[in-house]
Amino acid sequence: MDSRLKRIPLEIGYYLAGFTDGEGSFNVSFRPRPDYSIPWKVSVSFNVSQKDQIILALFKRYLGCGTLRSRPDGVWYYEVTNLTAVVESVIPFFERFGFLSAKKKRDFSKFKQIVALMQKEAHLTEDGLREILSIREEMNDGGKRRYTYPEILASLSKSSETTRQTPSTDGDDIVRSSWRHEGAVEATSPVALEPDF
Amino acid sequence: MDSRLKRIPLEIGYYLAGFTDGEGSFNVSFRPRPDYSIPWKVSVSFNVSQKDQIILALFKRYLGCGTLRSRPDGVWYYEVTNLTAVVESVIPFFERFGFLSAKKKRDFSKFKQIVALMQKEAHLTEDGLREILSIREEMNDGGKRRYTYPEILASLSKSSETTRQTPSTDGDDIVRSSWRHEGAVEATSPVALEPDF
Repeated sequence: MDSRLKRIPLEIGYYLAGFTDGEGSFNVSFRPRPDYSIPWKVSVSFNVSQKDQIILALFKRYLGCGTLRSRPDGVWYYEVTNLTAVVESVIPFFERFGFLSAKKKRDFSKFKQIVALMQKEAHLTEDGLREILSIREEMNDGGKRRYTYPEILASLSKSSETTRQTPSTDGDDIVRSSWRHEGAVEATSPVALEPDF
Repeated sequence: MDSRLKRIPLEIGYYLAGFTDGEGSFNVSFRPRPDYSIPWKVSVSFNVSQKDQIILALFKRYLGCGTLRSRPDGVWYYEVTNLTAVVESVIPFFERFGFLSAKKKRDFSKFKQIVALMQKEAHLTEDGLREILSIREEMNDGGKRRYTYPEILASLSKSSETTRQTPSTDGDDIVRSSWRHEGAVEATSPVALEPDF
C-alpha cells in the first residue's frame, strides 16, 4: 500500500467513504470537439459539494489532490479532474476504504473500468469511445448528461464517414456549469483540519 | 461503554457517521394539541433517507432500533422516534463515532440538549417548551418547519390565559408527510447485511 494511504487515520478514511457514499459523485463527461478526428473529449472527475467546507478540506488534505472552491450560493465544491491524481489518489483511497451501498459500489466499479480504458488511451479511438459510452450508461442511474448516448454515437458514425485528420490534443477541460466563471474563488481561508474524535 | 456499542466494527461505525454527516437528520417536531393544557406535543427523531436500502438496513442493525420503510417513489426511509431508543442507542452511537462537520456537530449538540430537557419532562411545561423552541431555532439552519417559532409562542401565551386542564398524554406521533399512509410498506425483503470491506 502507498505510504500516504497508510498514514490516513482509519476513522477519517471510513468517515469520508461513508460521506462519499451519500454525497460524492464519480463522473465521466463528454465534450464536443467538432474539428477533431475524434470529435469528443472524455474527462473523468470525482467531486463532492457541501455547505460546510470542513469535510471537503479533509478530502483535499487526505487525498492530497484536487481543488476546493466556494460558489456564489455559499456551497463548497471539491473536485479532482486530473487523470493521474484520479489513478494515484482517488481510486486507491476508495479501494482501501470501500463502499457499502450497492449503488456506489457499482458506480465506482464502472468509473474504474473507464479510467483503466483511458490509461490505455482508448478514449482516443472510436471503438474505445463507444466502449466508454456504454459503460457510462450504467453509472449514476442514468444521471443528468449534457449529451446523450445516441447523440454522441450518431456524431461518431458521421465522423467515420468524413475521417478528417486533425490533432487530438487540446487544453480545455469540462465545464459543468457556469458558476465557476462567475465569481468562484479558490478556498484560501483556514479551516479546522484536526478532527476531534 | 455499552456492550452493543463495543461490538460495532469501527469501519462500520465511522462509515455510518460519515454517511449521516451528509444524509442524516436530527429533528425536533411540534404538533398542535389544541384541547390540552400544554397545546403542543414535542417529538424528537433521527432519520436518513436514501434510494439504496443497504446503508439504512445497516443503521437499523447496528443501532438496534428504528423502522425502515420504502416510499412509493422508491426511496427508503429509516427513522427512530422512540425517546428511549434515541437516548440509549442513537445518541451513544454518534457520541462514540462523532461528527466532523461544524454543522452536524452543532445540530447533534442542540439535539442532545433538547433530548436531555425532555428526559426531565421539560416539554410538559410552558417554560420548558419555550427553551426547547429556542434551542431548535439554531438547528438544521432554520430548516423546513410546519409551525414557526412565533406561531408556537403566540399560542402558548394564549393558552396561559385560558389555562384549561386536560390530560397531557396521547398516542399520536408526528406525521411529517403523507406518504406514510399512502402505500408505505414495512421493509421485509432480505438485504445483504455483511459489508465486504
